[in-house]
Amino acid sequence: MTDDTDRHNAKMAKKKAARDKIMATKTEEKGLVIVHTGKGKGKSSAAFGMIFRCIAHQMPCAVVQFIKGGMETGERSLIQSHFSDACQFYTMGEGFTWETQDKSRDIEMAQTAWEKAKDLIVDPAIRMVLLDEINIALRYDYIDVAEVVAFLKEQKPEMTHVVLTGRNAKEELLEIADLATEMELLKHPFRSGVKAQAGVEY
Amino acid sequence: MTDDTDRHNAKMAKKKAARDKIMATKTEEKGLVIVHTGKGKGKSSAAFGMIFRCIAHQMPCAVVQFIKGGMETGERSLIQSHFSDACQFYTMGEGFTWETQDKSRDIEMAQTAWEKAKDLIVDPAIRMVLLDEINIALRYDYIDVAEVVAFLKEQKPEMTHVVLTGRNAKEELLEIADLATEMELLKHPFRSGVKAQAGVEY
Repeated sequence: MTDDTDRHNAKMAKKKAARDKIMATKTEEKGLVIVHTGKGKGKSSAAFGMIFRCIAHQMPCAVVQFIKGGMETGERSLIQSHFSDACQFYTMGEGFTWETQDKSRDIEMAQTAWEKAKDLIVDPAIRMVLLDEINIALRYDYIDVAEVVAFLKEQKPEMTHVVLTGRNAKEELLEIADLATEMELLKHPFRSGVKAQAGVEY
Repeated sequence: MTDDTDRHNAKMAKKKAARDKIMATKTEEKGLVIVHTGKGKGKSSAAFGMIFRCIAHQMPCAVVQFIKGGMETGERSLIQSHFSDACQFYTMGEGFTWETQDKSRDIEMAQTAWEKAKDLIVDPAIRMVLLDEINIALRYDYIDVAEVVAFLKEQKPEMTHVVLTGRNAKEELLEIADLATEMELLKHPFRSGVKAQAGVEY
Protein backbone atom coordinates (compact mmCIF):
# COMPACT_ATOMS: atom_id res chain seq x y z
CA MET A 1 0.00 0.00 0.00
CA THR A 2 2.79 2.42 0.92
CA ASP A 3 4.71 1.26 -2.16
CA ASP A 4 1.64 1.83 -4.29
CA THR A 5 1.18 5.30 -2.82
CA ASP A 6 4.84 6.13 -3.35
CA ARG A 7 4.61 4.99 -6.94
CA HIS A 8 1.51 7.13 -7.48
CA ASN A 9 3.11 10.16 -5.90
CA ALA A 10 6.31 9.77 -7.91
CA LYS A 11 4.26 9.42 -11.11
CA MET A 12 2.26 12.53 -10.29
CA ALA A 13 5.43 14.49 -9.43
CA LYS A 14 6.83 13.55 -12.84
CA LYS A 15 3.55 14.55 -14.52
CA LYS A 16 3.57 17.88 -12.69
CA ALA A 17 7.17 18.59 -13.73
CA ALA A 18 6.32 17.82 -17.37
CA ARG A 19 3.22 20.00 -17.22
CA ASP A 20 5.01 22.89 -15.52
CA LYS A 21 7.69 22.75 -18.20
CA ILE A 22 5.09 22.93 -20.97
CA MET A 23 3.14 25.70 -19.25
CA ALA A 24 6.32 27.79 -18.84
CA THR A 25 6.52 28.04 -22.64
CA LYS A 26 3.00 29.53 -22.77
CA THR A 27 3.82 33.14 -22.12
CA GLU A 28 2.00 35.04 -24.80
CA GLU A 29 -1.21 36.95 -24.12
CA LYS A 30 -3.45 37.86 -27.00
CA GLY A 31 -7.04 38.44 -27.88
CA LEU A 32 -8.50 35.22 -29.24
CA VAL A 33 -11.00 34.38 -31.92
CA ILE A 34 -13.05 31.65 -30.28
CA VAL A 35 -15.63 29.49 -32.07
CA HIS A 36 -18.22 27.19 -30.47
CA THR A 37 -19.98 25.01 -33.00
CA GLY A 38 -21.51 21.55 -33.41
CA LYS A 39 -24.95 20.04 -32.95
CA GLY A 40 -24.57 19.49 -29.23
CA LYS A 41 -25.68 21.73 -26.40
CA GLY A 42 -23.50 24.19 -24.54
CA LYS A 43 -22.32 26.46 -27.35
CA SER A 44 -24.06 29.56 -26.02
CA SER A 45 -23.89 28.58 -22.34
CA ALA A 46 -20.13 28.08 -22.48
CA ALA A 47 -19.79 31.45 -24.20
CA PHE A 48 -21.95 33.08 -21.54
CA GLY A 49 -19.78 31.34 -18.94
CA MET A 50 -16.82 33.27 -20.40
CA ILE A 51 -18.82 36.52 -20.31
CA PHE A 52 -19.49 35.89 -16.60
CA ARG A 53 -15.76 35.27 -16.11
CA CYS A 54 -15.02 38.64 -17.72
CA ILE A 55 -17.61 40.32 -15.50
CA ALA A 56 -15.97 38.67 -12.47
CA HIS A 57 -12.57 40.02 -13.55
CA GLN A 58 -14.04 43.46 -14.22
CA MET A 59 -13.22 43.21 -17.90
CA PRO A 60 -15.82 45.22 -19.83
CA CYS A 61 -17.61 43.03 -22.36
CA ALA A 62 -20.56 42.92 -24.73
CA VAL A 63 -23.05 40.49 -26.23
CA VAL A 64 -24.82 40.71 -29.58
CA GLN A 65 -27.54 38.10 -30.08
CA PHE A 66 -27.97 37.52 -33.80
CA ILE A 67 -30.86 35.11 -33.86
CA LYS A 68 -32.34 34.08 -30.57
CA GLY A 69 -33.73 37.52 -29.83
CA GLY A 70 -37.32 36.39 -29.54
CA MET A 71 -36.55 34.30 -26.49
CA GLU A 72 -36.07 35.93 -23.12
CA THR A 73 -33.14 34.00 -21.72
CA GLY A 74 -32.02 33.73 -18.15
CA GLU A 75 -28.55 35.01 -19.00
CA ARG A 76 -29.95 38.11 -20.58
CA SER A 77 -32.15 39.05 -17.65
CA LEU A 78 -29.37 38.29 -15.15
CA ILE A 79 -26.82 40.40 -17.01
CA GLN A 80 -29.26 43.27 -17.55
CA SER A 81 -30.46 43.29 -13.95
CA HIS A 82 -27.07 42.92 -12.23
CA PHE A 83 -24.22 43.71 -14.58
CA SER A 84 -25.39 46.25 -17.15
CA ASP A 85 -22.38 48.44 -16.31
CA ALA A 86 -19.91 45.66 -17.08
CA CYS A 87 -21.65 44.06 -20.05
CA GLN A 88 -23.54 45.71 -22.89
CA PHE A 89 -26.28 43.52 -24.28
CA TYR A 90 -27.91 43.83 -27.72
CA THR A 91 -30.60 41.56 -29.05
CA MET A 92 -30.92 42.18 -32.75
CA GLY A 93 -32.65 39.12 -34.18
CA GLU A 94 -36.31 38.30 -33.76
CA GLY A 95 -36.16 34.55 -33.33
CA PHE A 96 -35.08 31.75 -35.60
CA THR A 97 -35.55 32.18 -39.33
CA TRP A 98 -38.37 29.66 -39.39
CA GLU A 99 -40.16 31.79 -36.80
CA THR A 100 -40.03 35.03 -38.76
CA GLN A 101 -40.68 33.64 -42.27
CA ASP A 102 -39.46 36.91 -43.72
CA LYS A 103 -36.12 36.62 -45.44
CA SER A 104 -35.54 40.28 -46.29
CA ARG A 105 -36.27 41.30 -42.72
CA ASP A 106 -33.92 38.57 -41.42
CA ILE A 107 -31.14 39.88 -43.67
CA GLU A 108 -31.70 43.44 -42.52
CA MET A 109 -31.60 42.38 -38.87
CA ALA A 110 -28.44 40.32 -39.37
CA GLN A 111 -26.73 43.24 -41.09
CA THR A 112 -27.75 45.65 -38.34
CA ALA A 113 -26.42 43.21 -35.74
CA TRP A 114 -23.11 42.92 -37.62
CA GLU A 115 -22.75 46.72 -37.77
CA LYS A 116 -23.25 46.86 -33.99
CA ALA A 117 -20.77 43.98 -33.55
CA LYS A 118 -18.09 45.87 -35.49
CA ASP A 119 -18.55 49.00 -33.35
CA LEU A 120 -18.19 46.93 -30.18
CA ILE A 121 -15.15 45.00 -31.39
CA VAL A 122 -13.17 48.12 -32.28
CA ASP A 123 -14.13 49.86 -29.02
CA PRO A 124 -10.82 49.88 -27.09
CA ALA A 125 -12.60 49.71 -23.72
CA ILE A 126 -14.23 46.36 -24.47
CA ARG A 127 -12.23 43.19 -23.79
CA MET A 128 -14.59 40.47 -25.03
CA VAL A 129 -17.44 40.51 -27.54
CA LEU A 130 -19.80 37.55 -27.85
CA LEU A 131 -21.55 37.20 -31.23
CA ASP A 132 -24.20 34.71 -30.20
CA GLU A 133 -25.61 32.53 -33.02
CA ILE A 134 -23.81 34.52 -35.71
CA ASN A 135 -22.99 31.21 -37.42
CA ILE A 136 -26.67 30.81 -38.36
CA ALA A 137 -26.65 34.21 -40.08
CA LEU A 138 -23.38 33.32 -41.82
CA ARG A 139 -24.70 29.97 -42.93
CA TYR A 140 -27.70 31.52 -44.69
CA ASP A 141 -25.36 34.19 -46.15
CA TYR A 142 -27.29 36.94 -44.40
CA ILE A 143 -23.79 38.19 -43.54
CA ASP A 144 -20.79 37.60 -45.79
CA VAL A 145 -18.25 35.30 -44.13
CA ALA A 146 -15.38 36.82 -46.13
CA GLU A 147 -16.22 40.23 -44.68
CA VAL A 148 -16.32 38.86 -41.12
CA VAL A 149 -13.00 37.03 -41.55
CA ALA A 150 -11.31 40.11 -43.04
CA PHE A 151 -12.64 42.30 -40.23
CA LEU A 152 -11.43 39.95 -37.50
CA LYS A 153 -7.99 39.64 -39.10
CA GLU A 154 -7.47 43.30 -39.87
CA GLN A 155 -9.50 45.38 -37.47
CA LYS A 156 -9.92 43.42 -34.24
CA PRO A 157 -7.72 45.06 -31.58
CA GLU A 158 -4.91 42.73 -30.59
CA MET A 159 -6.07 42.09 -27.02
CA THR A 160 -9.81 41.78 -27.67
CA HIS A 161 -11.44 38.34 -27.50
CA VAL A 162 -14.28 37.64 -29.92
CA VAL A 163 -16.49 34.59 -29.37
CA LEU A 164 -18.68 33.33 -32.22
CA THR A 165 -21.30 30.65 -31.63
CA GLY A 166 -23.79 28.56 -33.56
CA ARG A 167 -23.86 25.27 -35.42
CA ASN A 168 -22.38 24.78 -38.88
CA ALA A 169 -19.49 27.21 -38.43
CA LYS A 170 -18.04 28.00 -41.84
CA GLU A 171 -14.63 26.56 -42.72
CA GLU A 172 -13.24 30.05 -43.42
CA LEU A 173 -14.07 31.07 -39.86
CA LEU A 174 -12.60 27.92 -38.31
CA GLU A 175 -9.40 28.55 -40.24
CA ILE A 176 -8.74 31.88 -38.51
CA ALA A 177 -9.96 30.74 -35.06
CA ASP A 178 -7.41 30.47 -32.23
CA LEU A 179 -9.69 28.24 -30.19
CA ALA A 180 -12.47 26.14 -31.65
CA THR A 181 -14.69 23.62 -29.93
CA GLU A 182 -17.24 21.31 -31.46
CA MET A 183 -20.07 20.45 -29.10
CA GLU A 184 -21.13 16.99 -30.15
CA LEU A 185 -24.51 15.60 -29.21
CA LEU A 186 -24.25 12.26 -27.45
CA LYS A 187 -27.77 12.16 -25.98
CA HIS A 188 -30.67 14.59 -25.94
CA PRO A 189 -33.76 14.46 -23.71
CA PHE A 190 -36.08 15.76 -26.48
CA ARG A 191 -35.75 12.29 -27.98
CA SER A 192 -37.62 10.86 -25.03
CA GLY A 193 -40.35 13.49 -25.01
CA VAL A 194 -38.92 15.92 -22.46
CA LYS A 195 -39.52 19.59 -23.22
CA ALA A 196 -37.17 22.57 -22.95
CA GLN A 197 -36.85 23.48 -19.29
CA ALA A 198 -35.90 26.57 -17.29
CA GLY A 199 -32.32 26.48 -16.06
CA VAL A 200 -31.31 23.91 -18.66
CA GLU A 201 -32.30 25.31 -22.06
CA TYR A 202 -33.08 28.93 -21.24
CA MET B 1 -36.54 38.29 -56.21
CA THR B 2 -40.11 38.30 -54.99
CA ASP B 3 -40.49 34.72 -56.17
CA ASP B 4 -37.31 33.79 -54.35
CA THR B 5 -38.53 35.51 -51.20
CA ASP B 6 -41.92 33.80 -51.48
CA ARG B 7 -40.23 30.43 -51.87
CA HIS B 8 -38.04 31.11 -48.85
CA ASN B 9 -40.98 32.21 -46.75
CA ALA B 10 -43.07 29.21 -47.77
CA LYS B 11 -40.16 26.88 -46.96
CA MET B 12 -39.71 28.48 -43.56
CA ALA B 13 -43.46 28.31 -42.85
CA LYS B 14 -43.33 24.58 -43.59
CA LYS B 15 -40.25 24.19 -41.38
CA LYS B 16 -41.97 26.05 -38.56
CA ALA B 17 -45.10 23.89 -38.83
CA ALA B 18 -42.97 20.72 -38.70
CA ARG B 19 -41.00 22.03 -35.75
CA ASP B 20 -44.11 23.16 -33.85
CA LYS B 21 -45.59 19.71 -34.35
CA ILE B 22 -42.50 18.01 -32.96
CA MET B 23 -42.25 20.43 -30.03
CA ALA B 24 -45.89 19.83 -29.13
CA THR B 25 -45.00 16.22 -28.32
CA LYS B 26 -42.33 17.37 -25.85
CA THR B 27 -44.50 17.90 -22.83
CA GLU B 28 -42.72 16.10 -20.03
CA GLU B 29 -40.76 17.95 -17.37
CA LYS B 30 -38.22 16.06 -15.34
CA GLY B 31 -34.97 16.49 -13.55
CA LEU B 32 -32.14 15.57 -15.88
CA VAL B 33 -28.80 13.86 -15.45
CA ILE B 34 -26.53 15.98 -17.66
CA VAL B 35 -22.95 15.06 -18.58
CA HIS B 36 -20.35 17.35 -20.20
CA THR B 37 -17.27 15.46 -21.29
CA GLY B 38 -14.57 15.42 -24.00
CA LYS B 39 -11.15 16.98 -24.42
CA GLY B 40 -12.45 20.31 -25.67
CA LYS B 41 -13.11 23.44 -23.70
CA GLY B 42 -16.47 24.59 -22.37
CA LYS B 43 -17.44 21.64 -20.14
CA SER B 44 -17.36 23.67 -16.93
CA SER B 45 -18.28 27.00 -18.52
CA ALA B 46 -21.41 25.55 -20.11
CA ALA B 47 -22.35 23.99 -16.76
CA PHE B 48 -21.82 27.32 -15.01
CA GLY B 49 -23.93 28.91 -17.74
CA MET B 50 -26.77 26.62 -16.60
CA ILE B 51 -26.16 27.56 -12.96
CA PHE B 52 -26.48 31.23 -13.95
CA ARG B 53 -29.71 30.38 -15.78
CA CYS B 54 -31.05 28.79 -12.58
CA ILE B 55 -30.02 31.85 -10.58
CA ALA B 56 -31.83 34.03 -13.13
CA HIS B 57 -34.98 31.92 -12.73
CA GLN B 58 -34.65 31.98 -8.94
CA MET B 59 -34.18 28.22 -8.83
CA PRO B 60 -31.96 27.43 -5.81
CA CYS B 61 -28.86 25.54 -6.90
CA ALA B 62 -25.48 24.33 -5.69
CA VAL B 63 -21.96 23.67 -6.98
CA VAL B 64 -19.43 21.14 -5.66
CA GLN B 65 -15.96 21.48 -7.17
CA PHE B 66 -14.24 18.12 -7.00
CA ILE B 67 -10.82 18.92 -8.35
CA LYS B 68 -10.18 22.47 -9.40
CA GLY B 69 -10.35 23.81 -5.88
CA GLY B 70 -6.86 25.25 -5.90
CA MET B 71 -7.77 27.74 -8.58
CA GLU B 72 -9.80 30.81 -7.76
CA THR B 73 -12.15 31.04 -10.69
CA GLY B 74 -14.13 34.01 -11.87
CA GLU B 75 -17.38 32.09 -11.61
CA ARG B 76 -16.75 31.24 -8.00
CA SER B 77 -16.01 34.81 -6.92
CA LEU B 78 -18.99 36.14 -8.90
CA ILE B 79 -21.40 33.62 -7.40
CA GLN B 80 -20.07 34.09 -3.89
CA SER B 81 -20.14 37.89 -4.07
CA HIS B 82 -23.55 38.30 -5.75
CA PHE B 83 -25.62 35.16 -5.51
CA SER B 84 -24.66 33.30 -2.37
CA ASP B 85 -28.35 33.14 -1.36
CA ALA B 86 -29.34 31.44 -4.60
CA CYS B 87 -26.34 29.16 -5.08
CA GLN B 88 -24.37 27.23 -2.47
CA PHE B 89 -20.73 26.76 -3.45
CA TYR B 90 -18.35 24.11 -2.10
CA THR B 91 -14.77 23.69 -3.18
CA MET B 92 -13.55 20.35 -1.91
CA GLY B 93 -10.50 19.44 -4.00
CA GLU B 94 -7.10 21.06 -3.74
CA GLY B 95 -6.12 21.19 -7.38
CA PHE B 96 -5.41 18.53 -9.93
CA THR B 97 -3.98 15.25 -8.77
CA TRP B 98 -0.61 16.07 -10.25
CA GLU B 99 -0.56 19.21 -8.14
CA THR B 100 -1.17 17.49 -4.81
CA GLN B 101 0.97 14.38 -5.31
CA ASP B 102 -0.78 12.78 -2.38
CA LYS B 103 -3.12 10.00 -3.40
CA SER B 104 -4.63 9.18 -0.02
CA ARG B 105 -5.44 12.83 0.56
CA ASP B 106 -6.99 13.09 -2.92
CA ILE B 107 -9.20 10.08 -2.18
CA GLU B 108 -10.29 11.54 1.14
CA MET B 109 -11.15 14.87 -0.48
CA ALA B 110 -13.09 13.21 -3.30
CA GLN B 111 -15.07 11.15 -0.78
CA THR B 112 -15.85 14.21 1.32
CA ALA B 113 -16.99 16.06 -1.81
CA TRP B 114 -19.24 13.13 -2.78
CA GLU B 115 -20.83 13.08 0.70
CA LYS B 116 -21.60 16.80 0.35
CA ALA B 117 -22.94 16.21 -3.18
CA LYS B 118 -25.38 13.56 -1.90
CA ASP B 119 -26.71 15.89 0.80
CA LEU B 120 -27.28 18.63 -1.77
CA ILE B 121 -28.94 16.33 -4.32
CA VAL B 122 -31.50 14.99 -1.86
CA ASP B 123 -32.26 18.46 -0.47
CA PRO B 124 -35.78 19.12 -1.79
CA ALA B 125 -35.18 22.90 -1.94
CA ILE B 126 -32.35 22.58 -4.47
CA ARG B 127 -33.24 22.36 -8.17
CA MET B 128 -29.83 21.89 -9.78
CA VAL B 129 -26.54 20.50 -8.46
CA LEU B 130 -23.33 20.87 -10.45
CA LEU B 131 -20.62 18.30 -9.68
CA ASP B 132 -17.72 20.04 -11.36
CA GLU B 133 -14.86 17.78 -12.51
CA ILE B 134 -16.32 14.73 -10.75
CA ASN B 135 -15.36 12.68 -13.83
CA ILE B 136 -11.68 13.04 -12.91
CA ALA B 137 -12.34 11.60 -9.45
CA LEU B 138 -14.39 8.80 -10.99
CA ARG B 139 -11.73 8.03 -13.55
CA TYR B 140 -9.07 7.49 -10.88
CA ASP B 141 -11.61 5.46 -8.86
CA TYR B 142 -11.40 7.92 -5.97
CA ILE B 143 -15.19 7.58 -6.03
CA ASP B 144 -16.98 4.41 -7.12
CA VAL B 145 -18.94 4.98 -10.33
CA ALA B 146 -21.39 2.20 -9.46
CA GLU B 147 -22.26 4.02 -6.25
CA VAL B 148 -22.80 7.32 -8.10
CA VAL B 149 -24.97 5.67 -10.75
CA ALA B 150 -27.08 3.85 -8.15
CA PHE B 151 -27.51 7.05 -6.15
CA LEU B 152 -28.62 9.09 -9.18
CA LYS B 153 -31.06 6.37 -10.26
CA GLU B 154 -32.55 5.65 -6.88
CA GLN B 155 -32.21 8.73 -4.69
CA LYS B 156 -32.14 11.79 -6.93
CA PRO B 157 -35.49 13.62 -6.51
CA GLU B 158 -37.49 13.44 -9.74
CA MET B 159 -37.34 17.15 -10.55
CA THR B 160 -33.71 17.81 -9.60
CA HIS B 161 -31.13 18.36 -12.34
CA VAL B 162 -27.62 17.02 -11.72
CA VAL B 163 -24.79 18.16 -13.99
CA LEU B 164 -21.53 16.17 -14.02
CA THR B 165 -18.45 17.50 -15.83
CA GLY B 166 -14.93 16.43 -16.70
CA ARG B 167 -13.17 14.56 -19.47
CA ASN B 168 -13.24 10.79 -19.80
CA ALA B 169 -16.78 10.33 -18.48
CA LYS B 170 -17.30 6.67 -17.62
CA GLU B 171 -19.55 4.61 -19.85
CA GLU B 172 -21.78 3.65 -16.90
CA LEU B 173 -22.50 7.32 -16.28
CA LEU B 174 -23.19 8.11 -19.95
CA GLU B 175 -25.65 5.22 -20.01
CA ILE B 176 -27.91 6.80 -17.39
CA ALA B 177 -27.50 10.39 -18.67
CA ASP B 178 -30.53 12.13 -20.17
CA LEU B 179 -28.38 14.73 -21.90
CA ALA B 180 -24.73 14.21 -22.76
CA THR B 181 -22.42 16.46 -24.73
CA GLU B 182 -18.88 15.77 -25.85
CA MET B 183 -16.79 18.90 -26.18
CA GLU B 184 -14.35 18.10 -28.94
CA LEU B 185 -11.17 20.09 -29.36
CA LEU B 186 -10.77 21.47 -32.86
CA LYS B 187 -8.09 24.08 -32.10
CA HIS B 188 -6.34 25.25 -28.94
CA PRO B 189 -4.26 28.41 -28.50
CA PHE B 190 -1.79 26.66 -26.11
CA ARG B 191 -0.44 24.99 -29.23
CA SER B 192 0.80 28.33 -30.50
CA GLY B 193 2.33 29.44 -27.21
CA VAL B 194 -0.57 31.43 -25.77
CA LYS B 195 -1.06 31.12 -22.02
CA ALA B 196 -4.27 30.72 -19.99
CA GLN B 197 -5.99 34.09 -19.83
CA ALA B 198 -8.52 35.79 -17.53
CA GLY B 199 -12.03 35.69 -18.93
CA VAL B 200 -11.27 32.76 -21.20
CA GLU B 201 -9.80 30.02 -19.03
CA TYR B 202 -10.60 31.24 -15.52
